[in-house]
Amino acid sequence: MIRFNSDYLEGAHPRILDRLSDTNMAQTPGYGEDRFCEQARNTIRRLCGAPDADVQFLVGGTQTNATVLTAALLPYQGVVSADTGHIAVHESGAIEAGGHKVIALPNRDGKLDAGQVSECCRLHFSDESHEHMVMPGAVYLSNPTEVGTLYSRDELQALRGVCDEWNLLMYLDGARLGYGLAAPGNTLDLPFLARVCDVFSIGGTKQGLLFGEAVVIRNPRLKQNFRYMIKQRGGMLAKGRLLGIQFEEMLKDGLYMELSRHAIVLAMQLKAAFTDLRVPFLVDSPTNQQFPILPNVVLPLLSQKYSYATIQAVDADHTAVRFCTSWATRQTDVDRLIEDLHALLR
Amino acid sequence: MIRFNSDYLEGAHPRILDRLSDTNMAQTPGYGEDRFCEQARNTIRRLCGAPDADVQFLVGGTQTNATVLTAALLPYQGVVSADTGHIAVHESGAIEAGGHKVIALPNRDGKLDAGQVSECCRLHFSDESHEHMVMPGAVYLSNPTEVGTLYSRDELQALRGVCDEWNLLMYLDGARLGYGLAAPGNTLDLPFLARVCDVFSIGGTKQGLLFGEAVVIRNPRLKQNFRYMIKQRGGMLAKGRLLGIQFEEMLKDGLYMELSRHAIVLAMQLKAAFTDLRVPFLVDSPTNQQFPILPNVVLPLLSQKYSYATIQAVDADHTAVRFCTSWATRQTDVDRLIEDLHALLR
Amino acid sequence: MIRFNSDYLEGAHPRILDRLSDTNMAQTPGYGEDRFCEQARNTIRRLCGAPDADVQFLVGGTQTNATVLTAALLPYQGVVSADTGHIAVHESGAIEAGGHKVIALPNRDGKLDAGQVSECCRLHFSDESHEHMVMPGAVYLSNPTEVGTLYSRDELQALRGVCDEWNLLMYLDGARLGYGLAAPGNTLDLPFLARVCDVFSIGGTKQGLLFGEAVVIRNPRLKQNFRYMIKQRGGMLAKGRLLGIQFEEMLKDGLYMELSRHAIVLAMQLKAAFTDLRVPFLVDSPTNQQFPILPNVVLPLLSQKYSYATIQAVDADHTAVRFCTSWATRQTDVDRLIEDLHALLR
Amino acid sequence: MIRFNSDYLEGAHPRILDRLSDTNMAQTPGYGEDRFCEQARNTIRRLCGAPDADVQFLVGGTQTNATVLTAALLPYQGVVSADTGHIAVHESGAIEAGGHKVIALPNRDGKLDAGQVSECCRLHFSDESHEHMVMPGAVYLSNPTEVGTLYSRDELQALRGVCDEWNLLMYLDGARLGYGLAAPGNTLDLPFLARVCDVFSIGGTKQGLLFGEAVVIRNPRLKQNFRYMIKQRGGMLAKGRLLGIQFEEMLKDGLYMELSRHAIVLAMQLKAAFTDLRVPFLVDSPTNQQFPILPNVVLPLLSQKYSYATIQAVDADHTAVRFCTSWATRQTDVDRLIEDLHALLR
Repeated sequence: MIRFNSDYLEGAHPRILDRLSDTNMAQTPGYGEDRFCEQARNTIRRLCGAPDADVQFLVGGTQTNATVLTAALLPYQGVVSADTGHIAVHESGAIEAGGHKVIALPNRDGKLDAGQVSECCRLHFSDESHEHMVMPGAVYLSNPTEVGTLYSRDELQALRGVCDEWNLLMYLDGARLGYGLAAPGNTLDLPFLARVCDVFSIGGTKQGLLFGEAVVIRNPRLKQNFRYMIKQRGGMLAKGRLLGIQFEEMLKDGLYMELSRHAIVLAMQLKAAFTDLRVPFLVDSPTNQQFPILPNVVLPLLSQKYSYATIQAVDADHTAVRFCTSWATRQTDVDRLIEDLHALLR
Repeated sequence: MIRFNSDYLEGAHPRILDRLSDTNMAQTPGYGEDRFCEQARNTIRRLCGAPDADVQFLVGGTQTNATVLTAALLPYQGVVSADTGHIAVHESGAIEAGGHKVIALPNRDGKLDAGQVSECCRLHFSDESHEHMVMPGAVYLSNPTEVGTLYSRDELQALRGVCDEWNLLMYLDGARLGYGLAAPGNTLDLPFLARVCDVFSIGGTKQGLLFGEAVVIRNPRLKQNFRYMIKQRGGMLAKGRLLGIQFEEMLKDGLYMELSRHAIVLAMQLKAAFTDLRVPFLVDSPTNQQFPILPNVVLPLLSQKYSYATIQAVDADHTAVRFCTSWATRQTDVDRLIEDLHALLR
Repeated sequence: MIRFNSDYLEGAHPRILDRLSDTNMAQTPGYGEDRFCEQARNTIRRLCGAPDADVQFLVGGTQTNATVLTAALLPYQGVVSADTGHIAVHESGAIEAGGHKVIALPNRDGKLDAGQVSECCRLHFSDESHEHMVMPGAVYLSNPTEVGTLYSRDELQALRGVCDEWNLLMYLDGARLGYGLAAPGNTLDLPFLARVCDVFSIGGTKQGLLFGEAVVIRNPRLKQNFRYMIKQRGGMLAKGRLLGIQFEEMLKDGLYMELSRHAIVLAMQLKAAFTDLRVPFLVDSPTNQQFPILPNVVLPLLSQKYSYATIQAVDADHTAVRFCTSWATRQTDVDRLIEDLHALLR
Repeated sequence: MIRFNSDYLEGAHPRILDRLSDTNMAQTPGYGEDRFCEQARNTIRRLCGAPDADVQFLVGGTQTNATVLTAALLPYQGVVSADTGHIAVHESGAIEAGGHKVIALPNRDGKLDAGQVSECCRLHFSDESHEHMVMPGAVYLSNPTEVGTLYSRDELQALRGVCDEWNLLMYLDGARLGYGLAAPGNTLDLPFLARVCDVFSIGGTKQGLLFGEAVVIRNPRLKQNFRYMIKQRGGMLAKGRLLGIQFEEMLKDGLYMELSRHAIVLAMQLKAAFTDLRVPFLVDSPTNQQFPILPNVVLPLLSQKYSYATIQAVDADHTAVRFCTSWATRQTDVDRLIEDLHALLR
């Protein structure tokens, strides 16, 4: 079985493991207050061109989203999200368990646009009984989105404007950020994100670390006492150094983007193959997640050799599925898959 | 200004105030453990044909919904509601503040149907990553709904079947229950509700009490320790007797239904007048809330003498508004309104 | 049975009921945005010498404490309270249900002193792992306390200093405030409370209203959007006018203090009687709650005619109990009780 | 600097890293549903003699405690803990953030005894206003405790009896379980814990893993849907295999106990040295945490070469400190410390 069903199928890039071995017996303070974390924080500040940013490390994505948003929102506020947003669908109600409504708006290719958010706020604040409704307090964006699409610089700037107008905190979930930054057509970079967002994350788990998400905080209110929130929400790793060591190794000399580009090259090969075979897509994704719509008849055969994720039935005879590449995907496996697709679909 | 904008514009029916006066200096234990509450509980049990029901009294509607649902749901469960449901829209996130997601489904004239709820559950439990999503744990229904419509006996029975199949608790919010039971075409009664629901409320605030909602609990798990929940959620009135006294007076000899019928008679006069004037409705309501779609040009004139609630713009020239009647509405005020409508709209 | 077990045994002072009757059929907007509430707000601002204060009305005490403190605290903060504080003991975990720890310190006659709070904060912030502990964010005081004692002006001023030093919000729960202000030795008044506290409440339920607590907010951060919190926490009464009408009637011409003084006069008669009879007290209370320590042998006889609250066993032969007077207590009932006590105890 | 301040100063035992390397490029499903986790679950079931136990893996201790207790408690229940309990002191209010009170009882050498818990329950349920107080719903025990002490088999059995009598769930936090099981005088073993507790944890983070806690669940109600809780509380690791791989390696052939014994041998050497030097202890600990009370004059000298944790001032001239040994502590470092202590203290 060759697995393409997600981008967290393997452990970590070998350099990460080597570095963990090299540093293994060094003694450090706990809870992220060690020199490895400090080094990684400085590297991230440098890459973001944001010397005053707070950088915190957490273990996983749901934890990161819940911790950031619980810290950001006042008790009567909710977070605006696309209805496909990870927090709206796939986190078992973690945001609500923290006391806050996810105000879900209809997604546009997995994204929110500035107009939607603006209209949502306008409707809220102009309603004479607005005190009876949840006040929008933050915007949740993911880039790449859950369906592999990307925000442009202009789109994010427009959203920033809306956030400023209505006093919303803007948070971008970058669980797959590298795969977005390496994608064809991408217009974003870390310094831009550090300017346009109040807070964003740089994903590690799906990008070649064993685990870990880095949170870059620009908003002064959010910086304050954020570590209390991490501890309370169960995200403060005793051996916090493990996160610093991994991020530093990944970011110090470009490995993060190198691995991201590797995944994108292979994803584009897959995309081209589906296109050649006239297979349509559920959504046009330039990133490491591809969503072809396949005839149901080929699925059993395909499943004998490959794993993929089933997304949704499109009609009686077709199903949208997801193939992911990652830092760990091998060229030979993609070649074999393409070969088999040609055999099955032509 | 004659007000038709809601059904809680006045105090209470005079008999309620008289009864509060008569009992005023009697000394009783607090927190609903007095003889007046016990009497009212027994009256409600009798009217419901449910001698084993637990009956609890709370002060307001949001409090009632939040207390019942927080008691009903496990930490990882959410409540299924029409997207027009009061808990989904107009309670400032009280359910989420209690830790639970409101799983909002598209309303059908303000209602949920059994098929929708069934499909929502089927999709949840058949998803291989269902543990990453909020589990449906209860269904919230309102009758009359927020747009004045009614569930039929068959509809509720079908929903009961779905709740049994998927192990959901079924809760009906009866904030305006009397206006529903008195409406043309109604097929429900209290004994039926006590059989079909796990828990439902009998509204007092909008039905002629100063305030108060009675909660009728049939589900044994929910009965257990419910008073802890009332206390914790801030709903346990020190002078709980005030609730018992009011409900007993209202229910002991049929005043509740008499007042409900009064409101419905006047609402149907209004409805007939709009129909005569070829004014369309946002929704066809047989209850005390009427939602005519009026030409914008008449609104300023109408507003000089009458208050009503603005619901939504329907097109550039028309707006849906809400007129409510209640136990307190006077025939002369309805007559005058109808006369003025004829003058304005003919 | 003559009841002395609490101060919420009857309904309301007759003037309150009369005023509710007089205003009963007036039509007003809901949710506290009516002219009666506005009038009462202005009266309270005037009595407090605080024209810029926000005044909000809630139904009950637990609701008031939970709403104020949930609004005041950041997610990682807790509230410092005496271990006898109502929020620490008798609210079924309402503060914790809102996500916050009650940091209970040993009471000194029901009170906190400035030194304790200061030391608690010093210990917290000087601990190198303070991020692993709950940060003190507010102080909860009650006056009179749960055991009937009073804060002095100096004590509150010292606590204010500590709150300023450590950035704590200072909240005083005045559920029985009138009985405190009318007590012998009292040094407080409303204008002083409005200066020294960030927020405090003026109790109505135990002071002759049917129900109701007024919250006086001075702290600008807390004023902001407080009504969202009231709604979300279930405290926004649909017919909010009921609160405004009652508070205005009680406060407009001194009825509140007149009734408070009545209760205190009777309580002092009781206190003198116990003292004459050499009955010791659990705590020396100058207010309407008296805590005599009675020989167990007299309790069954006393219980035949009078209700009182049992507080705690003091030794094998003695029990501390509580007798309350209130706005409604009759001189004849106190006379009879004193007579019977003389017969039993002499 | 030689560090003795905690037992999570280094990475992991080399065999753990080797095993992570060996398995690194294997492809597995995520979220703990892989073959490595299944293997580790079976190993733990075998070691516990509990074939029907549910075994779940989480990342850290605070997360584990919060997830277990939030799953265990009903909304109106709290958890009984010693006032030294980790959940009562050092988790930034994680339990309260989940909505529940920690009912802290005075510790006896870091422990609760059955009598205390029984009395706490008796007082609660016999109080006529028990509905106004938080109901005890679970007991939190740690073994070893936060001050290094151990429960005996008899003590736990007595607590089990109390839990059965009052319907409390019994949870034992084994963050340092191995150091307890390897200690002189220990009477517990895994099969006993699996019989006596509803749920307990086997700590990894402090015992030679990079991170990870295994939760062993016997109580059927708690087993149900526990994975929803893990996901919602942010504890479900995407690459869940990392936990399974580590626990399996540690437990499959006795490495866990071997490393535990190593730490205990060194801790006993330290303890003997302090005893020889007539240094008293804050508490008599048979485990890897030792709490000597040192003269303040030696602390600056000691701090030049060694790190330790400062616990509390004992008098003007003496301070209780904590020295920890662990799986990673070297004999040579302990020898050097003992030598220096002799020089400083003799």
